[in-house]
Amino acid sequence: MAQQERAVKTRRAVLEAAAVVFAEHGYTAATVADILRTAGVTKGALYFHFDSKEALARGVLEVQMDRVLPEREIKMQEVVDLAMTVAHRLPEDPLLRAGARLSTDPVGRRQYGSAWPLWVGELSAILGEAHRRGETLAHVVPREVAELMVGSLNGVQLYAQMESGLRDVEYRVSVLLKHLLPSIASPAVLMRLDVAEDRGARVLAEADREQGEESGQQGQVAVPA
Amino acid sequence: MAQQERAVKTRRAVLEAAAVVFAEHGYTAATVADILRTAGVTKGALYFHFDSKEALARGVLEVQMDRVLPEREIKMQEVVDLAMTVAHRLPEDPLLRAGARLSTDPVGRRQYGSAWPLWVGELSAILGEAHRRGETLAHVVPREVAELMVGSLNGVQLYAQMESGLRDVEYRVSVLLKHLLPSIASPAVLMRLDVAEDRGARVLAEADREQGEESGQQGQVAVPA
Repeated sequence: MAQQERAVKTRRAVLEAAAVVFAEHGYTAATVADILRTAGVTKGALYFHFDSKEALARGVLEVQMDRVLPEREIKMQEVVDLAMTVAHRLPEDPLLRAGARLSTDPVGRRQYGSAWPLWVGELSAILGEAHRRGETLAHVVPREVAELMVGSLNGVQLYAQMESGLRDVEYRVSVLLKHLLPSIASPAVLMRLDVAEDRGARVLAEADREQGEESGQQGQVAVPA
Repeated sequence: MAQQERAVKTRRAVLEAAAVVFAEHGYTAATVADILRTAGVTKGALYFHFDSKEALARGVLEVQMDRVLPEREIKMQEVVDLAMTVAHRLPEDPLLRAGARLSTDPVGRRQYGSAWPLWVGELSAILGEAHRRGETLAHVVPREVAELMVGSLNGVQLYAQMESGLRDVEYRVSVLLKHLLPSIASPAVLMRLDVAEDRGARVLAEADREQGEESGQQGQVAVPA
């Protein structure tokens, strides 16, 4: 394995270990020693990438949205897909759970920030494009709706986490979207949206296939060259 | 002051002090010593009412909904009034803030429970009555909507707390209601609802006046008797 590739893998392993520890214990109670033990890397390797607990928290927040999803003809479907794939990933993805917990820590976030501006920015951009294409109702203000969605999605996820250990998070996010979207999307768009509970799983499987095909094609191109 | 009245006042002072400490430090970091210092009562007085930190947390959760609001001809307005008065009280009411924080503590709530079942129960009851009276759309399931509202309201409040120190919480709750209610209430009911940002302040002023009149009347009856 090339040295750079190894460094990328180590960095990722450290971030995932940090996420496990932050999601479980919260920022204040977490220690770099815990993260070191969970990651199974040397102290030198960890400090090469992150020089403090704060840097680890920032690192975890930065990779919240590294999953690329398929583009859709209807932009409002991309809003749904973002929410439903996050809901699907939450139970198995400590990075997302740590992001949610770090973003609601009133003391810690003064130091390392929050994942919310990233999510609000991403959703604002998609909703803004949907608005320009006439997919939304006339009164919709993209940024206002983006902030509303980040706040309410976070609340519904937290509710699912507390009440069912996230077992019903996809159902709850789907219920939220079914109740919010009629005030956001135009009727003609609304009836074309897929907000089923299993939407997140299907979109992620599709994204995996697309990525597999891409690296497959790259491989085919690379070999004869 | 009668002994019983004094006991009620002491109990309330202890609960409010506990709420201040829980809201600020969270359940795990809070100590009975902190609460004692904040309450300014004797150790004996505190332990007479609450024999542990856990009992204090339970006490705080039990008084979350002790504010009686005026009844309305349209039951859906009572749903709005509940949400908007909570939003208005949050910045000044440590009991509500502590209730929110205690309810989202994954470790603590295994011991003392959560305020959410109380809120879901109250909202389910009002929504159920609204449903029977034909104020809601046909597909509405009162309990599902009650859980959705508790989760999303909590999320939006948390968002306001983190992003503005609760300064814009009434605006954010009003935005949430404006986006949720069209999927819940029938159009004829919808156009009669008051979901303005200052609704909470007006309803609480009205409730104060009603209570003042009641105790005034009681006084008038008591004097000549």
